[in-house]
Amino acid sequence: MAQMSEFDLVVRNGRVATASEVFAADIGVRGGVIAAIARDLPKAARDIDVDGCWVLPGGIDSHCHIEQLSGMGVMCADDFYSGTVAAAFGGTTTVIPFAAQHRGMVVPEVLADYSARAAAKSVIDYGFHLIVANPDERTLTLDLPEVIRSGITSIKLFLTYERMRVDDSIVLAVMDVARREGAMVMVHAENHEMIQHRVASLLEQGYIAPKYHAVAHDALAEVEAVSRAITAARFIGVRLMIVHVSAAETVDMVRRAKAQSPLILAESCPQYLFLSEADLDRPGLEGAKFCCSPPPRDAVSQRAVWKGFMDGTLDVYSSDHAPYRFDETGKLPKGEATTFKEMANGLPGLELRLPLLFSHGVMGGLISINQFVALSAANHARIYGLEGRKGTVAVGADADLAIWNPARQTVVTADMLHDRTGYTPYEGMNLMGWPETVISRGRVIVENGQLHAEPGSGRYLARDKLSWDAPI
Amino acid sequence: MAQMSEFDLVVRNGRVATASEVFAADIGVRGGVIAAIARDLPKAARDIDVDGCWVLPGGIDSHCHIEQLSGMGVMCADDFYSGTVAAAFGGTTTVIPFAAQHRGMVVPEVLADYSARAAAKSVIDYGFHLIVANPDERTLTLDLPEVIRSGITSIKLFLTYERMRVDDSIVLAVMDVARREGAMVMVHAENHEMIQHRVASLLEQGYIAPKYHAVAHDALAEVEAVSRAITAARFIGVRLMIVHVSAAETVDMVRRAKAQSPLILAESCPQYLFLSEADLDRPGLEGAKFCCSPPPRDAVSQRAVWKGFMDGTLDVYSSDHAPYRFDETGKLPKGEATTFKEMANGLPGLELRLPLLFSHGVMGGLISINQFVALSAANHARIYGLEGRKGTVAVGADADLAIWNPARQTVVTADMLHDRTGYTPYEGMNLMGWPETVISRGRVIVENGQLHAEPGSGRYLARDKLSWDAPI
Amino acid sequence: MAQMSEFDLVVRNGRVATASEVFAADIGVRGGVIAAIARDLPKAARDIDVDGCWVLPGGIDSHCHIEQLSGMGVMCADDFYSGTVAAAFGGTTTVIPFAAQHRGMVVPEVLADYSARAAAKSVIDYGFHLIVANPDERTLTLDLPEVIRSGITSIKLFLTYERMRVDDSIVLAVMDVARREGAMVMVHAENHEMIQHRVASLLEQGYIAPKYHAVAHDALAEVEAVSRAITAARFIGVRLMIVHVSAAETVDMVRRAKAQSPLILAESCPQYLFLSEADLDRPGLEGAKFCCSPPPRDAVSQRAVWKGFMDGTLDVYSSDHAPYRFDETGKLPKGEATTFKEMANGLPGLELRLPLLFSHGVMGGLISINQFVALSAANHARIYGLEGRKGTVAVGADADLAIWNPARQTVVTADMLHDRTGYTPYEGMNLMGWPETVISRGRVIVENGQLHAEPGSGRYLARDKLSWDAPI
Amino acid sequence: MAQMSEFDLVVRNGRVATASEVFAADIGVRGGVIAAIARDLPKAARDIDVDGCWVLPGGIDSHCHIEQLSGMGVMCADDFYSGTVAAAFGGTTTVIPFAAQHRGMVVPEVLADYSARAAAKSVIDYGFHLIVANPDERTLTLDLPEVIRSGITSIKLFLTYERMRVDDSIVLAVMDVARREGAMVMVHAENHEMIQHRVASLLEQGYIAPKYHAVAHDALAEVEAVSRAITAARFIGVRLMIVHVSAAETVDMVRRAKAQSPLILAESCPQYLFLSEADLDRPGLEGAKFCCSPPPRDAVSQRAVWKGFMDGTLDVYSSDHAPYRFDETGKLPKGEATTFKEMANGLPGLELRLPLLFSHGVMGGLISINQFVALSAANHARIYGLEGRKGTVAVGADADLAIWNPARQTVVTADMLHDRTGYTPYEGMNLMGWPETVISRGRVIVENGQLHAEPGSGRYLARDKLSWDAPI
Repeated sequence: MAQMSEFDLVVRNGRVATASEVFAADIGVRGGVIAAIARDLPKAARDIDVDGCWVLPGGIDSHCHIEQLSGMGVMCADDFYSGTVAAAFGGTTTVIPFAAQHRGMVVPEVLADYSARAAAKSVIDYGFHLIVANPDERTLTLDLPEVIRSGITSIKLFLTYERMRVDDSIVLAVMDVARREGAMVMVHAENHEMIQHRVASLLEQGYIAPKYHAVAHDALAEVEAVSRAITAARFIGVRLMIVHVSAAETVDMVRRAKAQSPLILAESCPQYLFLSEADLDRPGLEGAKFCCSPPPRDAVSQRAVWKGFMDGTLDVYSSDHAPYRFDETGKLPKGEATTFKEMANGLPGLELRLPLLFSHGVMGGLISINQFVALSAANHARIYGLEGRKGTVAVGADADLAIWNPARQTVVTADMLHDRTGYTPYEGMNLMGWPETVISRGRVIVENGQLHAEPGSGRYLARDKLSWDAPI
Repeated sequence: MAQMSEFDLVVRNGRVATASEVFAADIGVRGGVIAAIARDLPKAARDIDVDGCWVLPGGIDSHCHIEQLSGMGVMCADDFYSGTVAAAFGGTTTVIPFAAQHRGMVVPEVLADYSARAAAKSVIDYGFHLIVANPDERTLTLDLPEVIRSGITSIKLFLTYERMRVDDSIVLAVMDVARREGAMVMVHAENHEMIQHRVASLLEQGYIAPKYHAVAHDALAEVEAVSRAITAARFIGVRLMIVHVSAAETVDMVRRAKAQSPLILAESCPQYLFLSEADLDRPGLEGAKFCCSPPPRDAVSQRAVWKGFMDGTLDVYSSDHAPYRFDETGKLPKGEATTFKEMANGLPGLELRLPLLFSHGVMGGLISINQFVALSAANHARIYGLEGRKGTVAVGADADLAIWNPARQTVVTADMLHDRTGYTPYEGMNLMGWPETVISRGRVIVENGQLHAEPGSGRYLARDKLSWDAPI
Repeated sequence: MAQMSEFDLVVRNGRVATASEVFAADIGVRGGVIAAIARDLPKAARDIDVDGCWVLPGGIDSHCHIEQLSGMGVMCADDFYSGTVAAAFGGTTTVIPFAAQHRGMVVPEVLADYSARAAAKSVIDYGFHLIVANPDERTLTLDLPEVIRSGITSIKLFLTYERMRVDDSIVLAVMDVARREGAMVMVHAENHEMIQHRVASLLEQGYIAPKYHAVAHDALAEVEAVSRAITAARFIGVRLMIVHVSAAETVDMVRRAKAQSPLILAESCPQYLFLSEADLDRPGLEGAKFCCSPPPRDAVSQRAVWKGFMDGTLDVYSSDHAPYRFDETGKLPKGEATTFKEMANGLPGLELRLPLLFSHGVMGGLISINQFVALSAANHARIYGLEGRKGTVAVGADADLAIWNPARQTVVTADMLHDRTGYTPYEGMNLMGWPETVISRGRVIVENGQLHAEPGSGRYLARDKLSWDAPI
Repeated sequence: MAQMSEFDLVVRNGRVATASEVFAADIGVRGGVIAAIARDLPKAARDIDVDGCWVLPGGIDSHCHIEQLSGMGVMCADDFYSGTVAAAFGGTTTVIPFAAQHRGMVVPEVLADYSARAAAKSVIDYGFHLIVANPDERTLTLDLPEVIRSGITSIKLFLTYERMRVDDSIVLAVMDVARREGAMVMVHAENHEMIQHRVASLLEQGYIAPKYHAVAHDALAEVEAVSRAITAARFIGVRLMIVHVSAAETVDMVRRAKAQSPLILAESCPQYLFLSEADLDRPGLEGAKFCCSPPPRDAVSQRAVWKGFMDGTLDVYSSDHAPYRFDETGKLPKGEATTFKEMANGLPGLELRLPLLFSHGVMGGLISINQFVALSAANHARIYGLEGRKGTVAVGADADLAIWNPARQTVVTADMLHDRTGYTPYEGMNLMGWPETVISRGRVIVENGQLHAEPGSGRYLARDKLSWDAPI
């Protein structure tokens, strides 16, 4: 018990917040793990005094696309190095990107490939969700159970995108496996046929500008698919995460569904709080920079998403980082002639996700610091099988910490960011508060604007199985 | 920093839960406060090994009547000694009973009286809510602001009970003061006139048995008054706690109201989970033992209340302890001739509140251990201005802990309980899990079934002011 | 059977509409009653060819104040002559104004007085609702049953207005009598205390302009009182008409209530479709011309009221005609110094009610001609005990007909109207469609812009009792 | 104008009801059309005195399968003669069965075939809906517009049944054509994949009894598909009829949808009012007699369907007559070894539809006689393009009348019925009220229990186009 004096690191004098507490304490780290939370801990090998700053759990971004081929077949701009570096600079210490099985790919090979790339390059810890596009009998009976046992306890399904979408029979079959094996299902819920129907009609009439992307992806396409996914999950009895809820009517539907069933969970993202369909109508092809699916909506929906976060209807706040450059490799495959249908769908967000919410949500008085921790980290951990390890400041948890200076003011520019998208949809915004120091398993990986982490220093996280009938 | 080896008490090897975390750690207490949470803390003056048990924040019972004259003018059976002793044995370490201004009483005198009695007898810490029955101009402009500044930051209003009920103009006036001064309003919401109307009709027809109490207090009387209170709170912009929600339709109304406004909070109690109107129809006058207002309802409402706790519609779980003996001093003022209208309204619950929820909720798989902590302690602290001090296991908080043995089985009998009611409505129930050791500010006050606390050892808690527009 | 050739009047070649039918037919009238509906009826004493025009049931205005002292104690500008003349010119052939018991008045005397005045002056048929302000035991046990038996089968209660408002115990007592005796209850539902609270606050701050009337009568005051009235009606089991629903949230509440109980009925009026709170902010004291209670709301509420009419949530469309002159006798008792609190509350509408709805609703394509008949006449008859006699074009019904020229365009001016208000809030509006010929019990009372009816030629309508449990 | 004395038929002294009126009158018929409604019409060639009886519009059954191959590929037991005879004996004078395009069939040929058969055998008037199973480009661009112009203004789509089901892209394409051409879309809404998933699971476990049909067709399968159909209709802007709503949650969903959009219409049928899943669990294979899709549900859903009819959420009451014999041609293709999956889905109902609703709804006091007319006839006419011709008692309408003796008591037996199913699911029920005399276009086709109509005497009804944006 002499160990009280032998910490590798002490974070001293912080205002600490978890999802439910705020307290003043020192945090003692040993072996990458939080070993003590106390007042006046003894001096350690490394001692950081954070007086006046918040010490929060490092963020978890459970929805981001890194070094992945998109549903449209485009490789995203970030690899596991640039992606995790950007995350770290934004206060995020865990990412859960996707291993994506496109049609024709074999699941174990897909996983081996993603695992190798991530292991070589990541600077923070990571897990994977598995995207399944066309599971055959072998996938369902052998691969998925094996994948789930290996710690990938969430399977994502797309209801739209030609290369990835699955029909209802596959949704049900995958849900059934997930329920039995202790995994959950995530769903990109937009009705493919509605979008196709509208796209055909728009193109026929010569409507090709970026703003028509929002017309094509009508809110009703989301409403329909979310209803279908919810009902399927209730039918099977599996836990469901509806990712990137964007429309007011969908938020209402999720609220009602949660009153009916504890199986239903939901997520939204910064683009649905801070951007709108008006951005898609910026001059020329500028709107392409705001093109993602579902698209940013109107002010009514923005308020509904805020309210969803405030009252707990929406459980997690993720980036849906999907970085594509504003050039022929991403947004403009046909240059100036690119139609809304051809632009890569997706926005960068890994780095600014948390500063945006901290500034407008916490400093703006809309959510408490506990809600910030819950939405940015703790709920991700609880829902995705990392409870007790990530997303909290508690003894035994990994020492993943973000030290936020609430007084730091920043004007957003693309130059300051660390991903490889080359632009940011939040250019020029004023933010209050920034995660100045970021710690991953006790390693200070970001400090004074500098990175102190080697590629490959992040570790793979095998996530816990989920019990479909346990309270969440 | 040598203090790491100088704790008054160490609770060792616990599975600790807060409202959001579960972790394994020792808890070091110094000066009545949690000073360290760590693995392998050094040996202390007092060392308790709780291997295999849950270490939870001591419960907070924010709705209990102790040594108080009821709305019907009956003194309850427990004083501040027996009441707080019963609470302690049931794992509760903080109570917030009421100081009650009946018509004709002066607020400062009321408070001085209650404060003196509680200070002399309580064995655990306590705060007060203030019941206001007929505020005059002085009460509104001088007394209430002073009361709120003194740490009584919640004002309770009754919409029924002849001696206490207030009309809408008073509701609005008090809400307005509360909003300005940083307090919240609690409301007993039943429509007085509907009850009177029904009572008159029942008595006229000779219906006097206990079961007619449930007929008189129709669920619609609750629905009406809850709607009125919610709308008034939205009109004024004040935080509102609807106590003892009992009916399914009311739970739905609260759920809708919360989607409209963050000002609305709600509570329910064990009697609405575990008892029903059928209990009021037990032979002879036995039903009087289950007579409280609002009354226990039917199975549909029981399920709705459970669901309300599960999905967060109901924020706090309290006892509404209102102990009256099954004799002429309480339930049977006219002996065998007592009508439902004359029976004292109220049930004991201070001691069994938490064992009931732990057993059926946590052990029964309906709620998680985090939800148990939230409903039984943490949400009370957050809502009622005790955040950071009570309801949590965090550095700097009071060392109020309950050590729950989840494997302990108990058959409820009135004999085993420590309040003075003389009966329990839960007689014969089988419970799994019990708070075997209870610690208040570092003092082990309950251990091996024995009390170790002197009358008057509990302290008054001045509660924090509330900001009506801060996220909760 | 030779009578087929002996009609007093034939209305020939009309497009006839009832609440559910449209057909082309002649209408044969004998003895004031519709005796035949057929093609090619024989020529009659009086023969009107209405080729190209709609033949609709004469309108019923079941909510209008004529020759009545208001809740604020002001006599309205119209007597039973000018009021019924204005109604007739607007296509209305039946009115159901109020006999108003103010505090201290005796019900039988009140009725005798109103009956005498109406009998002497009315040019169209009329019934009465009874307003009850302070019923004593005699009123409840003797007068109301007698009144109901005499054909006044609806009792109106005010929840606000100092001279008229009743508390919940009276609401319940009157509802109970109404249920037993076969009457319904109408309610002006605004929370009096909320309004008083807000008024005091506004006046204290010096806010006196007309627009503050809308601030004082917050939509939440309506929401609260409507909820209370609905719950009381469900508690007692009596049929309830919520008059002048104005706010979007109230429309939603009524829609939900109707899904719970068939007892609930609702009304709205032209001012909530065509006027808004912006009108109350016209320059100077002009806003007083738009001051009524509840006040016109915003565009969201206007749309909600339209939707309520379209989907059947709102059952009847009435005028709430309450005519006060724009001078010291009505709107401006203190001239230029008049505050919003002192202005008589109410707007004229008897004459323009139907032309407004016909033009914007029917010609504008929002409602069908059948819905127009239902909202303007048939539903009034069905709900208020005139079924089979009024509000329809059917054999045996009174020959009350309005012949609408759908092509007639009109620009509204106060000069063209026949009431004595002296202004119209709809000044300058363009209307399409007008009831050019109006027939009451077979008498052509309006034709070519001329009146052909003597004062006192209208008859009293004893209305049918209502069965609280019959389908409506 | 001498024609007043020249009627072919007078129905004398009836109590007549339409969807909105009740009146006492004689009805004079000339040339098959109602020529006069009046008191004391002169004597006619044929004179029927119906003193004491209701004269109602003949029923319209807008959902019945006659001489049609089912979605499972089974021919139903009734041809156009037995089907229309059964309808007539039950008070129905118009049927709108289906012309069904199965996969591989050409629409014009399908129509020619059905038209020829119906023309040769029907004894009452009839229209058609068109079922489309796999429309190709020609179907969409040429056939459907032509079909709609020919008076088939409703297209039905199945979301389940292997031979008929269409995917969302076809749903949208057909809806788009319907919207443009002035037709509506009807939908059998159950999620095919959910049913298949459950069926596979049940069969795998050896669950084959009739009661498992209800397990396989989970209410959630209906909820999902109804939501999808509603959202698709809102997306396209086309009028949608959801047929055979069976589950409480679906009724609630339709009620909410109607508050959002006037495009949504809904139907239910006697089996959802009078039968339940318990009937499917009758001994042996008896349950097969109650096997239809969706299946009868529980008591909660029965009440919800009643409430849906009472408050207007459900617009029309149809039979979904789908007659299959209790032998190897229908319910038991494999005799005693038949599994729930192999039984023909469907119940007879053409003849008892109206007597069941009249007895329990009107005589039981749940709905008014006007609601009966609306649900059984008038709403069908209004919605399906027969307004002014059928479903009403109005001058100019076809003289289709049913004369109901409200005092006639009947005990249901299969023997008394005129369809060819051979059994009735309502065997043994006591009914009050019966349509003793039935008149089609002035011909008395049922009288004293005898049929007076030749095969082929019914006429085809070309139905009106529908305007998607007109008030309905």
